[in-house]
Amino acid sequence: MHLHRIRVVRDALDANETIARENRADFDHAGVTVINLMSAPGAGKTTLLERTLAELNAMSAPPRVAVIEGDVQGSIDASRIAEYHVPVVQINTDAGYGGECHLDANMVRSALSSLPLDDIDLLIIENVGNLVCPAEFRIGEDRRVMITAVTEGEDKPLKYPLMFRACDLVLINKIDLLPYLDVDVDVIRRNIESVHPGVPIMAMSTRSGAGLGPWCKWLVNVTRRTTVSA
Amino acid sequence: MHLHRIRVVRDALDANETIARENRADFDHAGVTVINLMSAPGAGKTTLLERTLAELNAMSAPPRVAVIEGDVQGSIDASRIAEYHVPVVQINTDAGYGGECHLDANMVRSALSSLPLDDIDLLIIENVGNLVCPAEFRIGEDRRVMITAVTEGEDKPLKYPLMFRACDLVLINKIDLLPYLDVDVDVIRRNIESVHPGVPIMAMSTRSGAGLGPWCKWLVNVTRRTTVSA
Repeated sequence: MHLHRIRVVRDALDANETIARENRADFDHAGVTVINLMSAPGAGKTTLLERTLAELNAMSAPPRVAVIEGDVQGSIDASRIAEYHVPVVQINTDAGYGGECHLDANMVRSALSSLPLDDIDLLIIENVGNLVCPAEFRIGEDRRVMITAVTEGEDKPLKYPLMFRACDLVLINKIDLLPYLDVDVDVIRRNIESVHPGVPIMAMSTRSGAGLGPWCKWLVNVTRRTTVSA
Repeated sequence: MHLHRIRVVRDALDANETIARENRADFDHAGVTVINLMSAPGAGKTTLLERTLAELNAMSAPPRVAVIEGDVQGSIDASRIAEYHVPVVQINTDAGYGGECHLDANMVRSALSSLPLDDIDLLIIENVGNLVCPAEFRIGEDRRVMITAVTEGEDKPLKYPLMFRACDLVLINKIDLLPYLDVDVDVIRRNIESVHPGVPIMAMSTRSGAGLGPWCKWLVNVTRRTTVSA
């Protein structure tokens, strides 16, 4: 039973890798940079997207952005993002047996025909809120970014190391709440560093706007770099 | 591929149900009430346990408690609970391929021989932090309790309805932070009610201690009731 299960899981991950590479080839062909945005439920992914779209819109020559929203159920997030007049596609993962806890490459692939790939520079994919499985499924992304909120406590990097290791950038969100918590942001930084040495870390508050500038600059930089090399 | 996958998943869930019933029979035989405690990462499960154990210890005839800690990796939580001098077993789910995002009945079964079932009244099992998959896997529990933290926002019941529907009690935690958030606790209550009409809801703060009394009373009540009927 156990070996059989491991084989099934490995086959599923292999099949996912194949489709992820196809997605990646299509993104490269269209010159689109893709960000896979992950976090626990309620860490602030959608609010970060809203603030980011507003910030980018205020730039002189902003990248053209589209968004894929991944949720088990509902289209609350897609409705929020649509307010910013960017192309947005909602993927619901509850079509599977019981509801999937992550996006996989095939779900993203099914959304591609609804997106104007040739007319965008940057695709941000908001994954299902979960600190475990999304880290195991590539979806064709260039960069993986995760958010950890200070309200989640200091120990999350030690308890969910795979997610922290899988990411190219870790955002520490909700720092405006630090005065009201028994949490030391330096301990969070040290714990991230202990499981993923050298990973870039940015502290921010999507509520106050603190730290949004460096994040948007990072985003524009990775978009330009990929576009140039494509 | 898709049908095959659904069949594999259904077989796994069926096998899990069988083992969950065996666990339940063993718990009933020993007169132990079992709580499956679930939430997103960082909602406050372990802190709730710490505060609960302290509160129960201060009672005149407290139930005898043991704890199972479920985490992908590490034993931080078990170490925290051990401070309260109750039997505690840590289950790490990373033995599977890539790390499981939930406890299943077999993992719990493997921990039973390490617990003095005949000498306890109440077993609290802290599940892996995740709002999706733990709701799909019975582990032999009598009651399922979930925590949603106000810091996670108002929309979680609508986005992760299965978890909210699966529970017998919903705890709304971190209400001490409400003055610093753009969150209305009445909206959270209405959203919970909309996906699980009539489910008991308790607001609390594991930090300030608000609401701990009703929760501990609920816990003692379900423990006594099950013990009497066993």
